[in-house]
Amino acid sequence: MELIEGKKVAAEMKKEIAEEANSIKASGGKTPHLAAVLVGHDGASETYVAHKVKACEEVGFKSTLVRFEEDVTEEELLAKVDELNNDKDLDGFIVQLPLPDHISEQKVIEAIRPSKDVDGFHPVNVGRMVIGLPAFVSATPAGIMILLERYKINTSGQNCVIVGRSNIVGRPLSILLSQKTPTANATVTVCHSRTKNLNEVCANADILIAALGSPEFLTADMVGEGAVVIDVGTTRVKSDKTKSGWKLKGDVKFDEVSPKCSYITPVPGGVGPMTIVSLLKNTLLASKKEIYR
Amino acid sequence: MELIEGKKVAAEMKKEIAEEANSIKASGGKTPHLAAVLVGHDGASETYVAHKVKACEEVGFKSTLVRFEEDVTEEELLAKVDELNNDKDLDGFIVQLPLPDHISEQKVIEAIRPSKDVDGFHPVNVGRMVIGLPAFVSATPAGIMILLERYKINTSGQNCVIVGRSNIVGRPLSILLSQKTPTANATVTVCHSRTKNLNEVCANADILIAALGSPEFLTADMVGEGAVVIDVGTTRVKSDKTKSGWKLKGDVKFDEVSPKCSYITPVPGGVGPMTIVSLLKNTLLASKKEIYR
Repeated sequence: MELIEGKKVAAEMKKEIAEEANSIKASGGKTPHLAAVLVGHDGASETYVAHKVKACEEVGFKSTLVRFEEDVTEEELLAKVDELNNDKDLDGFIVQLPLPDHISEQKVIEAIRPSKDVDGFHPVNVGRMVIGLPAFVSATPAGIMILLERYKINTSGQNCVIVGRSNIVGRPLSILLSQKTPTANATVTVCHSRTKNLNEVCANADILIAALGSPEFLTADMVGEGAVVIDVGTTRVKSDKTKSGWKLKGDVKFDEVSPKCSYITPVPGGVGPMTIVSLLKNTLLASKKEIYR
Repeated sequence: MELIEGKKVAAEMKKEIAEEANSIKASGGKTPHLAAVLVGHDGASETYVAHKVKACEEVGFKSTLVRFEEDVTEEELLAKVDELNNDKDLDGFIVQLPLPDHISEQKVIEAIRPSKDVDGFHPVNVGRMVIGLPAFVSATPAGIMILLERYKINTSGQNCVIVGRSNIVGRPLSILLSQKTPTANATVTVCHSRTKNLNEVCANADILIAALGSPEFLTADMVGEGAVVIDVGTTRVKSDKTKSGWKLKGDVKFDEVSPKCSYITPVPGGVGPMTIVSLLKNTLLASKKEIYR
């Protein structure tokens, strides 16, 4: 069993991105610039946004944090999105989800200009990705594709099973993996709560991706010998052993599953670190105008 | 074995659409209006467009056929698209594909205003469909979903295998069928040229959809007892038995496959007729502003 060390790959990629940012700046180009909009003070959201800002610093990007209190109106938030759309120094921005109930997340997402939508959530980016056109691909699926590639895991013709059909992970990943590209070309099955014989379907997978957000859902009997297992779960569960009072749990029962695998991602240190580095990568692509002219 | 008679369902739906169009007109509303743009004189394209125009007449829609010769420039075509986008009387329009090589199909598709894109090919409509937002869904997958619904074929939790990953059939259908809606919820596998053990994967399907465009590709050994088989293929093959000199062949070897099926669509008269009626349905939705306000 070999561990897929997302943390290590993410560090390598950050180094590559920093080098490219430096060479852009050295040749007189603009510093890549990412903004994050944070509404309220949800603990997880605060942590994610802080990590994103810190990651920008690490690679030499400029970052801007825009804060609103919980009671910001939809109108005020949309006005800010409009301002960021038109900010010439800004290459891309994200609005950290979830938003308070009185604000339509979909309306906010659709207000972001697709060429600045480095989270890849706008319908235009989703649609372009599906069709196979250049697009900002959302960070988690993009990060998983990079991990498979860097670990030289053959996907072509492989039986790939994804558990979970969310718009931000399962669905886009299923599309990316089955596309007619040298690093994809897998036979992809999307499973979910209604799937019958789920255990059997999973046990037959060459590549098994757990992205349902249910801690330790995937057990050893659901995994075939020699499978590649990608664990996308990052649920915070209470813990009296950590200073924060919680720890991250994946969707895979690692201890019993890992001995059966050829490759497996740990939690933490697997898919998670790739998410932020994918966002940096998208910001770099935005600053280079590689997706949209 | 029961035949899924698309021709009959399409006729029923045309009647329903005609009734709705009449009641709109009777209450002083505008006549739904579809335009088709046809470049050149390709035989199949001429036939498709003629069918679409005729179908509009049958349901009491207004239709406009815009013709260009093969040597029309991309610029001229895009100018016409712009004109149609801004034509207030027009609810929706299609540009019949394929286009000549000197014109970028993608550029033309992206120039169509999403709210008039009744073919559902624009990235905005594709993306919205993927996310689960109201969208124009392309005609063939939409028609197949209607057939399954009208024949009360249970899809929830069923093992559904789609052979073919095209942007206009296999891919969107795979997304529609696996969505969390009462008429979908299937476990969907997308197969293609690289899939290993294709025969075995197909033989295990509860619902098997052949959408690869390879005449009589699907043989009896690839189909399990009691499966539902949907044949999307419509390849023109030479024939000395028809006046036209060709006949339509499906992707399924009907004679040997049909005895094993619980349900199967014939070719012709199965999926084909549903495609045009789905286009009429989209035009009606456009005229009622049910997808976009």
